[in-house]
Amino acid sequence: MAAHRVVIVGGGFGGLYAAQTLARHDVQITLLDRKNHHTFQPLLYQVATAGLNPSDIAVPIRSIFRKRENVEVLLGNVAAIHKDSRTLTLEDGATIPYDTLIVATGATHSYFGHPEWAHLAPGLKTIEDALEIRKRIFFAFEAAEREPDETLRAPWLTFVVVGGGPTGVELAGTLGEISRQTLRHDFRHINPTESCILLLEGSPAILGSYVPELREKAKVQLEHLGVKVRSNARVVTIDAGGVTLAPVDGKPGERIPSRTVLWAAGVAASPLVKSLGVPLDRAGRVLVEPDLTVPGHPEIYVIGDVAAVKQGDGFVPGVAPAAIQAAKHTADNIVRTLAGQPRTPFRYHDKGSLATIGRASGIADFGRLKLSGFLAWIAWLLIHVFFLIGFRNRFLVMFEWAMSYLTFQRGARLITGKVPLMELPAASVRSPTSVASVAAAGPAAPPPPS
Amino acid sequence: MAAHRVVIVGGGFGGLYAAQTLARHDVQITLLDRKNHHTFQPLLYQVATAGLNPSDIAVPIRSIFRKRENVEVLLGNVAAIHKDSRTLTLEDGATIPYDTLIVATGATHSYFGHPEWAHLAPGLKTIEDALEIRKRIFFAFEAAEREPDETLRAPWLTFVVVGGGPTGVELAGTLGEISRQTLRHDFRHINPTESCILLLEGSPAILGSYVPELREKAKVQLEHLGVKVRSNARVVTIDAGGVTLAPVDGKPGERIPSRTVLWAAGVAASPLVKSLGVPLDRAGRVLVEPDLTVPGHPEIYVIGDVAAVKQGDGFVPGVAPAAIQAAKHTADNIVRTLAGQPRTPFRYHDKGSLATIGRASGIADFGRLKLSGFLAWIAWLLIHVFFLIGFRNRFLVMFEWAMSYLTFQRGARLITGKVPLMELPAASVRSPTSVASVAAAGPAAPPPPS
Repeated sequence: MAAHRVVIVGGGFGGLYAAQTLARHDVQITLLDRKNHHTFQPLLYQVATAGLNPSDIAVPIRSIFRKRENVEVLLGNVAAIHKDSRTLTLEDGATIPYDTLIVATGATHSYFGHPEWAHLAPGLKTIEDALEIRKRIFFAFEAAEREPDETLRAPWLTFVVVGGGPTGVELAGTLGEISRQTLRHDFRHINPTESCILLLEGSPAILGSYVPELREKAKVQLEHLGVKVRSNARVVTIDAGGVTLAPVDGKPGERIPSRTVLWAAGVAASPLVKSLGVPLDRAGRVLVEPDLTVPGHPEIYVIGDVAAVKQGDGFVPGVAPAAIQAAKHTADNIVRTLAGQPRTPFRYHDKGSLATIGRASGIADFGRLKLSGFLAWIAWLLIHVFFLIGFRNRFLVMFEWAMSYLTFQRGARLITGKVPLMELPAASVRSPTSVASVAAAGPAAPPPPS
Repeated sequence: MAAHRVVIVGGGFGGLYAAQTLARHDVQITLLDRKNHHTFQPLLYQVATAGLNPSDIAVPIRSIFRKRENVEVLLGNVAAIHKDSRTLTLEDGATIPYDTLIVATGATHSYFGHPEWAHLAPGLKTIEDALEIRKRIFFAFEAAEREPDETLRAPWLTFVVVGGGPTGVELAGTLGEISRQTLRHDFRHINPTESCILLLEGSPAILGSYVPELREKAKVQLEHLGVKVRSNARVVTIDAGGVTLAPVDGKPGERIPSRTVLWAAGVAASPLVKSLGVPLDRAGRVLVEPDLTVPGHPEIYVIGDVAAVKQGDGFVPGVAPAAIQAAKHTADNIVRTLAGQPRTPFRYHDKGSLATIGRASGIADFGRLKLSGFLAWIAWLLIHVFFLIGFRNRFLVMFEWAMSYLTFQRGARLITGKVPLMELPAASVRSPTSVASVAAAGPAAPPPPS
């Protein structure tokens, strides 16, 4: 008899840990992803800010399962799930049958009904996103260095991060570090330490999932790094020249000119689950049973950010530890089912949460133990290195971090891909001179013809 | 009086070493490049083959000159040199005046009158090129794993490298290493060790610049890694399905079906020097005076791969050490001219040449001392690490190499950028099974509908 065939869609935390747990049992596993690599998403913001290389935090999925003969890894984009025939179809036309299916396709950015903002304000979910953000950040400083007109230069040195959750806080904090420390001596015409970094949060406070005490500490630490934190600031327009906020107290909405807007505000479930034809919540997540299966289809599990899992009064949060726990639990349930035993309901155990805020600071909440500043940063650092896959990645990340910490430099400051050179200021280049004398004399060249 | 203004175009070996040498003197330097980073080109093939990360071999030019107040680094693409007005214009419209100009814009690929081959057979000059080649190599193995039809699978597992110079030899040797060692256990339906790697050389022998004894040793080492070396093989057609060779002895030209063709055959000087309006050689290089200046324009120096420098019966070769020597010599000549002293002619000192051929093998020619195999590889390794810029890069490259050597793995096996998922074989995916049983039973699924 052929082994039971489990197909897993998605090689993020959910899919990866499910496959690793199941691989020890007598099942045949097919793991599908449209990328060839697993990405350690919690450190993606460090790739976006040049602290780490893509391959420090991404590992080929295929090589993780090199020694697991019962795991087959395939590159492909799943277009639809056909739950009645128990098959998947891929975008390229292939059909894949399954006995048991695990959907772990995660989440994507949500621009709250404004898909046209996507190219104006990139979000951070993939290695490609991170490289695009890295390019925009460092290109902005290059363009500013070329721009003699102060009014035109300011938007290049204004960085707007939309969304005050952990990703937004980490991006804004690191931008503070880059402008205040890393790039400090690198330019001749601009002073990077004068850049303006704005963190916009629509609700009354950043890091809403933390207790007020830690939120306040995070805000102080961000301000120490030069980040201006603006709460109750809701973005209503994004265009190539900047963002406009919603009106407040009858006054017209504020306009913030900026050439670099980054999106960390909203996520929506991967659209693949629409093809399941079952009820979804407002964020597009599948409303699963307590054992994480689809109602009426005990052979389909949905785990991670794409599942809406009720627990107590609320839902299990969309964080990596929850996806990992759900993955292990699901693997156990599949093994139990094959052994003729009943499935058990899933319970998420919150072991605490951490956020880092630039160099040597952060906040951590482990229930009774609450940390902030340097200690929280160390805790964050150890936990993230521990969860990275493979000795090579752990070692490289620790080395890069040690180097950054000691030298204030960042190792991966490359602008790669298609560089928008034509967007560079066409004004005559100024005579080479130091920032000090520019500041004293004002712009040394006439404003550009435009 | 304002300091003498030297403008350097190009941040490769020539431009970088010229700026570093000049920076110690009382001149004002502007270094222009269309990238923000200097690329250590001799190791680019290692990025293309996933052994190293882009930022291991590329450094932001700006950060190299962080502490040199008299060096200004600008991002921009120079469109034309106006030698009469002593100005440059950039693509974006900016104008830059100079007192002395150093042109060090290097070389680009030459497809011998077939520009349409460029996207079919990428060459290797930039980080972007290397990432494109990396994507194609690892995507080909993914597609082969998805393809059940043997006839359609073979071209995905056939890699053609056109050009048997050092770059072609290094690429082909590393492809041998990847297919025979790195990927050995990673697939379930294909056997990567059966891939076909062809190195095509139009002339009678690969590595034409080496002595016959070392050439022969290189060929043996390549064949040991599974590379088929074909000399007198001139490519006349490249299309999406493979390459066609020129007819030999009246027999029609051979057709080689392949989905991955890499170009290492020809280079041409950067086209910027056409705007100088002075005589160029067939490869588009400027025929410079013995002091590396443009005839009739002692204030314009041309160095590196973009200059044709006569020496003895031939020309100075287009290699990194020659560009570095020319850069230092030019900086000295500029300082001498400013001091009212006469300029001296340039002489290239050939200190030897090395090429590496996959894992732990290579050839080296230091005049009387000729090495091959492991010793040549060690010499190559030490010299390349020594010339890398910065402690961080040296350390990381050594670490990656040690890890690869010990584990046979390669650290940066990511497929990034736009992945052509629609090109994946649309045939039904086979039932998961081991390579052995596939080999025994033949293709397990019908050929694809196309």
